Amino acid sequence: MQLLKDRILKDGIVKPGNILKVDSFLNHQMDIDLINEIGKEFKARFSDCPITKILTIEASGIGIACIAAQYFHVPVIFAKKAQSLNLDGEMYRSKVESFTHKKVYDVILSKKFLGPEDHVLLIDDFLANGCALLGLIEIVRESGAVLEGAGIVIEKGFQDGGKKIRDMGVRLESLAIIDSMTDDSLTFRED
Amino acid sequence: MQLLKDRILKDGIVKPGNILKVDSFLNHQMDIDLINEIGKEFKARFSDCPITKILTIEASGIGIACIAAQYFHVPVIFAKKAQSLNLDGEMYRSKVESFTHKKVYDVILSKKFLGPEDHVLLIDDFLANGCALLGLIEIVRESGAVLEGAGIVIEKGFQDGGKKIRDMGVRLESLAIIDSMTDDSLTFRED
Repeated sequence: MQLLKDRILKDGIVKPGNILKVDSFLNHQMDIDLINEIGKEFKARFSDCPITKILTIEASGIGIACIAAQYFHVPVIFAKKAQSLNLDGEMYRSKVESFTHKKVYDVILSKKFLGPEDHVLLIDDFLANGCALLGLIEIVRESGAVLEGAGIVIEKGFQDGGKKIRDMGVRLESLAIIDSMTDDSLTFRED
Repeated sequence: MQLLKDRILKDGIVKPGNILKVDSFLNHQMDIDLINEIGKEFKARFSDCPITKILTIEASGIGIACIAAQYFHVPVIFAKKAQSLNLDGEMYRSKVESFTHKKVYDVILSKKFLGPEDHVLLIDDFLANGCALLGLIEIVRESGAVLEGAGIVIEKGFQDGGKKIRDMGVRLESLAIIDSMTDDSLTFRED
């Protein structure tokens, strides 16, 4: 998605440790016009799929999922990262290791909101080692829903998450895949 | 907002401990059509304000803020609940006590995204004892931005957050205010 790649080149900042900061437009401050274009692009790429729910994970995926959901006309459900006192009833549960925060946490989703009748699109802002997405995939499989695919805004193609998920046979659409990243250059994979 | 009140009566569930679960449409599963109407209503109520940024707090406020921001044509910024390895540079910081999780956490926002030139609308899903909103208000004051007001989806009018914030002179618009809540009845404050 050229608009997104141009924006990453303009406003993305590379930090030591293979960190790409896109916090001025994607995951701390959010440019809603850009995210609308991202939502339309996800719809275009998954227009052949009978999506009934969009599933994401808190926190930065939620806004993108909600904007995208307007084009699919389906509800968003978001998995939560820890047990909340307000969550009761039966839960789907998986464990995720966070690359950013260097810890393991539980990801939970109420069983009320996902079942075998659903066709699910996963949406998240980043894909690196794939742990968050693998946690969501595990939840979808446990629910018996059909996993139609995953839409990612930025994939770090030099980490192995994308390969792992494609090798599982999951349809993965990343709007910008970064194949290499240094302090002064970014190389995107060709579409 | 009648549409919202009707939905709370239809799908909200009261739990012991003054807990109102609206997780089937607002903060676990999200009904995007309803949230769009909520976004329009916030725009109608704050149409006289020269808003430049919408500020919310992760996680469940983010989707509502993003949908609402489409009507204001401004970016969303969301405060984060803990230090992240990807956040650097100078931060606004306040402390918030969570009613739901019974703990105190730091709320942080990069100084890059809010300054004296901004006119801020706060948006969140719930207002009970007001701690989260007070944390955001502290951040806005520290930034020197103009606080235009706060838009809340559901206010628990029988807790003191709303009174505290109105007493501070902050313009607070809650789309549904619940004045009393028992296992089998909910009473809304008159508009």
